[in-house]
Amino acid sequence: MKVGDLGEFGLIRRWERELAVDPARVPRGIGDDAAVLTCPARRQLLASTDMLVESVHFDLGFTSPRQLGKKAMAVNLSDIAAMGGRPMYALIALGLANDTALELVDGLYQGLQEEASRWDVFIVGGDTVRSPGGLTISVTVLGHVTRGRAVPRGGARPGDLVVVTGDLGASAAGLATFTRPGATVEAKALDYVRSRHLEPVPRLREGELLARHGASSMIDVSDGLANELNHLSRLGAVSLVVDAAAVPVAPATRAVAQALGVDPLSWALTGGEDYELLFTVSPGDFHRLARAVQAKTATPLAVVGQVEAGTGCYLLYGGRRQPLQATAYDHFAARDPLQQA
Amino acid sequence: MKVGDLGEFGLIRRWERELAVDPARVPRGIGDDAAVLTCPARRQLLASTDMLVESVHFDLGFTSPRQLGKKAMAVNLSDIAAMGGRPMYALIALGLANDTALELVDGLYQGLQEEASRWDVFIVGGDTVRSPGGLTISVTVLGHVTRGRAVPRGGARPGDLVVVTGDLGASAAGLATFTRPGATVEAKALDYVRSRHLEPVPRLREGELLARHGASSMIDVSDGLANELNHLSRLGAVSLVVDAAAVPVAPATRAVAQALGVDPLSWALTGGEDYELLFTVSPGDFHRLARAVQAKTATPLAVVGQVEAGTGCYLLYGGRRQPLQATAYDHFAARDPLQQA
Repeated sequence: MKVGDLGEFGLIRRWERELAVDPARVPRGIGDDAAVLTCPARRQLLASTDMLVESVHFDLGFTSPRQLGKKAMAVNLSDIAAMGGRPMYALIALGLANDTALELVDGLYQGLQEEASRWDVFIVGGDTVRSPGGLTISVTVLGHVTRGRAVPRGGARPGDLVVVTGDLGASAAGLATFTRPGATVEAKALDYVRSRHLEPVPRLREGELLARHGASSMIDVSDGLANELNHLSRLGAVSLVVDAAAVPVAPATRAVAQALGVDPLSWALTGGEDYELLFTVSPGDFHRLARAVQAKTATPLAVVGQVEAGTGCYLLYGGRRQPLQATAYDHFAARDPLQQA
Repeated sequence: MKVGDLGEFGLIRRWERELAVDPARVPRGIGDDAAVLTCPARRQLLASTDMLVESVHFDLGFTSPRQLGKKAMAVNLSDIAAMGGRPMYALIALGLANDTALELVDGLYQGLQEEASRWDVFIVGGDTVRSPGGLTISVTVLGHVTRGRAVPRGGARPGDLVVVTGDLGASAAGLATFTRPGATVEAKALDYVRSRHLEPVPRLREGELLARHGASSMIDVSDGLANELNHLSRLGAVSLVVDAAAVPVAPATRAVAQALGVDPLSWALTGGEDYELLFTVSPGDFHRLARAVQAKTATPLAVVGQVEAGTGCYLLYGGRRQPLQATAYDHFAARDPLQQA
C-alpha cells in the first residue's frame, strides 16, 4: 500500500491514534488547528527546528525507516540538551512522495515516537504533504529550562577548560563502513560505530547536569569538533586551544580508521554527527561538575583544551600549535556530504 | 549570486542580522542551539506546523518570493487565529537547491519577516539545508491563549449557528486567473481575487474576539468550506446544515467565475486557501459576538447554517437538502492541486 492510496487525512488519522499524550500536559494534541500545551511555571521555553532531506542527510539504502525516525528526533533533542534544558513536545512536518510505501512511513513514525517516549516527549502536531523531491522531515522540539540558566554558545571565558562528553569520530567511522565497504572490521567495533551513526543518543541528562554545575558555554557536536570550537570562539570572542592527543576517540573508531587507512583524528575534528556535548567550565567548577556527571551517568568527560584571551582556534599537534579552521559540514558544499568520510 | 556560493553558515549570518527581536521576550534567538523564549504567565501555549513544497503548494511562476514568504507565515498564523490565540514566535526550516538565486531567498525571508512583524511575531529559529527536490518551507508558529479558552474544532452543539467571516472562493478565483488565463476581467476584481490568493490575511483579531465571545467550535478555511464543515461535524459528533444561498461570495469572485464559466459556489465549497474562520456559536451569544466583531474590525460575519443532532453535513440548494461530502484538498491526490480550479 502506498501513501497516495490512503491520502493526507487517512495518514493523519492513522497516526493520531498512535500518538497518545498526557492530557494534563497536552490539553489538545494532533487533530486541531494548533496544539494546546501547558508551559511550566517559572521556566523559560526552548525551541529548535531541523530539516532532514533524503540523499542530503540520510540514505535509506543503509538506514531503516525506524532508525531514521529515531535519529530525526534525537538530533533535535540534542539541541535542547546543548542548552541544558529538558524537552517536552515535538511537531513533525513530513514531505512524502505519492509512491512512498506506507510501511516506510509507519517505520518512520514508530522511530519518531519511540525516541520521543524515551525522553518523555509528546508529539503534539504535524503536517503531512506531498513532496515530489523525496522524503523530507522537519522536526521542531520545544523544551524548558530554569529561568536565566540556559547555557549559551557565547559564554566561554579565558581560563575556562574545554571539555567534551563521550568520544568523537565514531559516527563518521560508522558512515564510512557503509560508503566504503570492504574493510575487515571486528563485529563489535562495527556495531559500535554504526550504532553511533544510525541511532545517536542525545546527551539530555548530561546537558542538564552541566548547566546546573556551571558550564559557561555549550554546543552539541553535530558538524565536527573543529566547527563547534570555532562557533564557541567566535561567539564568546575568545581563543580556544585544543590538544589533539586529548581528543577522545573510541577503540572501535580507531579500529575502523586503521582498517580503512584513515587518521581517526580527522573524523573527530571534521566528521560530525557525534551529538556529544562540547562545553567550557572554569577550573574551579570543573571537579564538582565532573563528580555530578560521574555520579548520575556513565558518560566520561575529557578535558581537551583551554580558553585563552584572543581570537581563533588552535590545535596542539606533534609539538606544534597550528590554526584550526572551521571545516563546516556545509549542506550547500559541492561535494556530497554522504561521501565526505 | 547563488545559495551554493554563500554556503549554509553564510546564509544564516546573512539573516541573523535582519531578524531583530525584543530581548525581553526572546532572551536568545537565532544563533544558538535552541531559542530561549518567555512564556506568558497563566496562559497556555499554542503550537502549529506546516510544510509548503514547490510545485505542490506554490508556483514561483506567478508568486513572487516575497509573497510566498508572507503566505507561508500567514497560513500558520491562521492556525493560531482558529484557536482564538495570539501568535508570538516562529521557526523556519528551509530546503533550498544549490543553484537557488540568493535574490529569491532574500525575497522569501523579507516576506516571512514582513508578515511576522505585522502581527508582532518574532522569528526565533531556523534551519537552512540543501534540498535537491526544489524549495521546501516548513514554518512552526507558537502562540498563547487564555487558559482553557482555546476554541476546539469539536465543540459545536445542536442549535448553534454556523458562521463564517469575510467571503469564500476568492482565493480559488485568484488561482484560476493564473492557471486559466485569457478571460476578460475588470482590473479591480482581478486585483481582489489575486491578492486573496497570493497574500491571504490571517484573521487573528477576529479569532481572539470570537473566542472571547463564545464561539463553541472554530476552524480556518484552508481546504474549502465543505471539508472544514465535515471536520466540525465529525469531531463534534453533530450534523451541520448549510444554506447555499447564504454562503458569502464577493462580487469580484462572481465576476471572475462568470468570465471563466464556473459556478462560484464550487470555489467557495471546495476551492480552499481562503483562510477565513468558520465557527459555531449559540444563538443567545451570537448578537453580542457580532457586535464585538463589528465594533473592532471591518470584517463581515455571515450566518450560513445551523448545527443539528445527528451526523454528516448537508447543503440546502435549489430547495433540496443534499449530503455535502468532504472534498478534501488532498496533497496526495493524483491530480495536480495547482490545476484543481
